[in-house]
Amino acid sequence: MNDNCAALRARPRDRIAGAARDLFHKHGIRGIGVDAIAEAAGTNKMTLYRHFGSKDDLIIQCLRDAALEAESWWAEFEADHPGDPSAQLHAWVLGCAECVDDRGCDLANAAVELADSDHPARRVIEEIKTDQRNRLVKLCSAAGIAEADLLADTLWLLVEGARVSRQSVGAEGPSVRFVRMCEAIIASFGGGPAATPSRNSKSDLREQVA
Amino acid sequence: MNDNCAALRARPRDRIAGAARDLFHKHGIRGIGVDAIAEAAGTNKMTLYRHFGSKDDLIIQCLRDAALEAESWWAEFEADHPGDPSAQLHAWVLGCAECVDDRGCDLANAAVELADSDHPARRVIEEIKTDQRNRLVKLCSAAGIAEADLLADTLWLLVEGARVSRQSVGAEGPSVRFVRMCEAIIASFGGGPAATPSRNSKSDLREQVA
Repeated sequence: MNDNCAALRARPRDRIAGAARDLFHKHGIRGIGVDAIAEAAGTNKMTLYRHFGSKDDLIIQCLRDAALEAESWWAEFEADHPGDPSAQLHAWVLGCAECVDDRGCDLANAAVELADSDHPARRVIEEIKTDQRNRLVKLCSAAGIAEADLLADTLWLLVEGARVSRQSVGAEGPSVRFVRMCEAIIASFGGGPAATPSRNSKSDLREQVA
Repeated sequence: MNDNCAALRARPRDRIAGAARDLFHKHGIRGIGVDAIAEAAGTNKMTLYRHFGSKDDLIIQCLRDAALEAESWWAEFEADHPGDPSAQLHAWVLGCAECVDDRGCDLANAAVELADSDHPARRVIEEIKTDQRNRLVKLCSAAGIAEADLLADTLWLLVEGARVSRQSVGAEGPSVRFVRMCEAIIASFGGGPAATPSRNSKSDLREQVA
């Protein structure tokens, strides 16, 4: 069974949300209409609107799916380094480096595209981003960093910056040094150095750890 | 004469470009059509297309105008601190802090919105951003920083991150510490501390210098 068949066997609601996430990611939220999403999901606009009352509802579902994916991502590197918050912090940096790609963060991009501060998706973006940032503060604190808030916010702005800079100037721009910057900053806050990376990665950014 | 009268006395081309920049900034490039721009400029679509062959041409003009504005901005703080690159570097940080607002960087936002990497505006964004980044490297180097490239790229990602984070989570998020982070990082690279700020500013972010 090829991937297409597997996708068609998924429930219509999941197919629509999956197609929407993929297309929003590639083309931007405003660059894609519900017709294209319904077609990519192998369904029609009527079915789309039966599951999602509006395009805005579908956007919010995609943002919440992105947040769930981030949850799995945190769980993964916590499981890789149980009881070792310092190693988890370095794993967070490496994990972020792998997310620095040509389209960056779906949540940050959505905030840029949905310029109206009253758009219902904006509250969802703020809620998810704030949760993620607070989790990073806790991790920095657990790793023994005295100024955990300041380190977390610095790392946070660096990853947000790397993801948006990569979109503006490509892979050879400032984002190529992301891991090296983070490691230097963690060290300047009194954090221990990264151990030899234990997971394989195709990202060039990983090389910056050395 | 009120502002509106002054705007109407400007040349049509300048009025159109000015209205486009303002509306793109507020609503996003994809959130605004040429009709709304022509109306805001006190003209019509035919005149708009006589001056700009397409919406894409108008977008590119707006990006180039943003770059010219950045040029004046650099010239201003160089003039404020002649022959003192260290003071210019701190002035760059404070100037950037003032640009961290609800809508962030027009160039970075445009790169997010124009997701197609072949869009003609993407080359312009890359060219302008790269020029600005190279200028910051030179400033770090002139300020006596040994690892000028790394410091410049770190500061660059922090400002890109602050501007996009502010859009996602508002003024109380990680971007509120932008100046404090930059000053700590400049110090960790061996740069001298900031002198007492000499220019007035309304930005809360300036308070973080203290």
